[in-house]
Amino acid sequence: MMKHTYIEDVGKHDGEEVTLRGWVHNKRSSGKIQFVILRDGTGYIQGVIVKNAVSPQVFADADTLTHESSIELTGKVRADSRAPSGFELDVRGLKIYQEVSKDEPFPITPKEHGIEFLMDHRHLWIRSTRQRAILKVRHEIIKAVRDFFDDDGFTLCDTPVLTPAACEGTTTLFEVKYFEDKAFLTQSGQLYNEATAEALGKVYCFGPTFRAEKSKTRRHLTEFWMVEPEVAYATVDDMMDLAERMITFVVQRCLVRRSEELKALERDLSMLEKVSVPFPRISYDEAVALLQKHGSEIQWGSDFGGGDETIISQQFDKPVMVHRYPTAVKAFYMEPDPARPEVALCVDVLAPEGYGEIVGGGQRIASYDLLAQRIKEHDLPREAFEWYLDLRKFGSVPHSGFGMGIERAVTWICGLEHVRETIPFPRMLYRLNP
Amino acid sequence: MMKHTYIEDVGKHDGEEVTLRGWVHNKRSSGKIQFVILRDGTGYIQGVIVKNAVSPQVFADADTLTHESSIELTGKVRADSRAPSGFELDVRGLKIYQEVSKDEPFPITPKEHGIEFLMDHRHLWIRSTRQRAILKVRHEIIKAVRDFFDDDGFTLCDTPVLTPAACEGTTTLFEVKYFEDKAFLTQSGQLYNEATAEALGKVYCFGPTFRAEKSKTRRHLTEFWMVEPEVAYATVDDMMDLAERMITFVVQRCLVRRSEELKALERDLSMLEKVSVPFPRISYDEAVALLQKHGSEIQWGSDFGGGDETIISQQFDKPVMVHRYPTAVKAFYMEPDPARPEVALCVDVLAPEGYGEIVGGGQRIASYDLLAQRIKEHDLPREAFEWYLDLRKFGSVPHSGFGMGIERAVTWICGLEHVRETIPFPRMLYRLNP
Repeated sequence: MMKHTYIEDVGKHDGEEVTLRGWVHNKRSSGKIQFVILRDGTGYIQGVIVKNAVSPQVFADADTLTHESSIELTGKVRADSRAPSGFELDVRGLKIYQEVSKDEPFPITPKEHGIEFLMDHRHLWIRSTRQRAILKVRHEIIKAVRDFFDDDGFTLCDTPVLTPAACEGTTTLFEVKYFEDKAFLTQSGQLYNEATAEALGKVYCFGPTFRAEKSKTRRHLTEFWMVEPEVAYATVDDMMDLAERMITFVVQRCLVRRSEELKALERDLSMLEKVSVPFPRISYDEAVALLQKHGSEIQWGSDFGGGDETIISQQFDKPVMVHRYPTAVKAFYMEPDPARPEVALCVDVLAPEGYGEIVGGGQRIASYDLLAQRIKEHDLPREAFEWYLDLRKFGSVPHSGFGMGIERAVTWICGLEHVRETIPFPRMLYRLNP
Repeated sequence: MMKHTYIEDVGKHDGEEVTLRGWVHNKRSSGKIQFVILRDGTGYIQGVIVKNAVSPQVFADADTLTHESSIELTGKVRADSRAPSGFELDVRGLKIYQEVSKDEPFPITPKEHGIEFLMDHRHLWIRSTRQRAILKVRHEIIKAVRDFFDDDGFTLCDTPVLTPAACEGTTTLFEVKYFEDKAFLTQSGQLYNEATAEALGKVYCFGPTFRAEKSKTRRHLTEFWMVEPEVAYATVDDMMDLAERMITFVVQRCLVRRSEELKALERDLSMLEKVSVPFPRISYDEAVALLQKHGSEIQWGSDFGGGDETIISQQFDKPVMVHRYPTAVKAFYMEPDPARPEVALCVDVLAPEGYGEIVGGGQRIASYDLLAQRIKEHDLPREAFEWYLDLRKFGSVPHSGFGMGIERAVTWICGLEHVRETIPFPRMLYRLNP
């Protein structure tokens, strides 16, 4: 196939003839001139088709172009300061690859559509300017996270999706028929990370995780991506340092590389510009006092709900780190604070502007005996955790890690209402299609 | 926790006192001097403990150190050209975090272990020099693949693991209970990539994929990672160009950044150094003739088995690209060659030295009518593919893509016998633990 030029590169060809290939994003006509906005995934450009400058066939073809038809435009690139991209194309040639039928036009139009309709047409909805912008920011966030860890000496160690045991209870697990056996879809790579951290020192996993959450909220997907670093010989304080550095790096990267997309999403960039090291750090005790001051009826000992997180995060214009939650409300593997065993050496990072938790983590129990006791207290099947206990038998070390949910980070950075727009094909309680 | 130095960084501290933290990799004694090889995941260094230079307690502690005990060594870095890493540590202080019991020593010893034993202890086996080297190369391959696509203008679009329909038949699918419904674990993100490519032009997905393969071979895992690029307005020839560029980039990156690990694996680097653009391209017809010449009984029309791939790939010292297989043996979505519809516009890339297929891909059917006909011919449930057909109704374009299995690429680049060592926790027919 003859090489063509991508719209993002037209600036390199000012005054030259190029061939562009894409889809009809918009079209309007003023008699002897037709204007076609072409999109090709890398950008948008207006093609100007002047009746006198093209063959009668090209002008006639242009006249009947329908929304989202696939076409090729040949013409000369012309700088135009009024154009959003800075360039226009003076069209000479038009080739239609496939014309969308007038009888069955592209189903998504500028008018309002219900969310179920849009989700049913997610394979087409992603072509919209807004959805494209979100996916570009998602891409950038993931790239930034990976670059951050790779450049910081971490080794990527992919952990399995198919697991024999439950990490945190079985009620929210998806069960898989695994030949004659059964397996569960992973909820977290953490336990495996603890093994690879003892082999490689600083590791992270980054893959899809699953939670059979029966609640329909704007913060939950059943399938979501999570990055989870784990560091041997690291404490909860080290994790706070790491998390604030990582989040700041990611936000800065998006501001530098995706400001155009963030503006298209009408994101208030000034809020993102405030994200810098250090983040405020408050204890759970302080967070409870803060909530009570704001009228919450929460009592010491309860975990925070989404509403509580919203209240806390609204008090700060940066992400806030809440540490040392009550041991009783946290997972079995959390290291208790030696100075005060009723709280755990854990930390949650809440995104500002009411977005709530995006990171959770902390220090893991290093003692074999204490871990064995916790497994018993939590009624977990000891046999399934023998390998995990081995990590405390053969060179146990203080170690810590955290997980960041990518879709929640995208929701916050893009300033969205709902997590469902942050992944190409979201999976939710009643949503497995397309 | 006090900051410590990673072994990979000791060269920056020659002559200085540092604190290192890690695990006892090896130990030997010659009376008044003890030698401890410490590993911390970033490297190995020998600590020299001289009786006169340390307290009696430190010397006594060092004397009883067991394999894989977790320790901290403090001492002065000294350049030593005889040391594998170029440096040794003159130890002054030793702290033991957790001593592995003499009654239950680290189970993996230098003696031979059976593969089932090693796989049962995979969480500990990964600490070995060889397994660490493989995981470092795996990390580098994945990083290189992502950098290649990111720098080439591709957008990462994660595709779902939980899918409602089968991409290529249902016999090798894992079924998941999805609330009241059922779902299948993805075998490929391709169909979804075709949708995102029409939105973003050049895309890739990169995640775990699943195949309920009942065969036990050295090339198959039930859970494996795959990178799949998809490009709008691209042909099968474009895919051959892209695949050879990508593979060359990845191999070069490993040679530059991981030659130490490849040497530790006793990889013949001269074979990898031959990997450069262009790769030989032969048609399926030519491949059949080649096989027959080498004594194979294959007839035109059959797909290649692993043995056939081995024979073909042994004829070349670079990856070889075999294109235009019979349409009948390929997936329903393959675009037939317009000049010769009995063959499809597809390509497999076979790694040299007998490693066989690492990439498969090609051009997808662009015509709505032909795709609808194929779905019928293959007895696929039309309803489940309505959204996929939509992509041919609303701006269909010629488009192509491919998939590369990461574990097969790691197997080849590391020069391994079996795919099971290429991922931290492999999943196979009889292997779901740990």
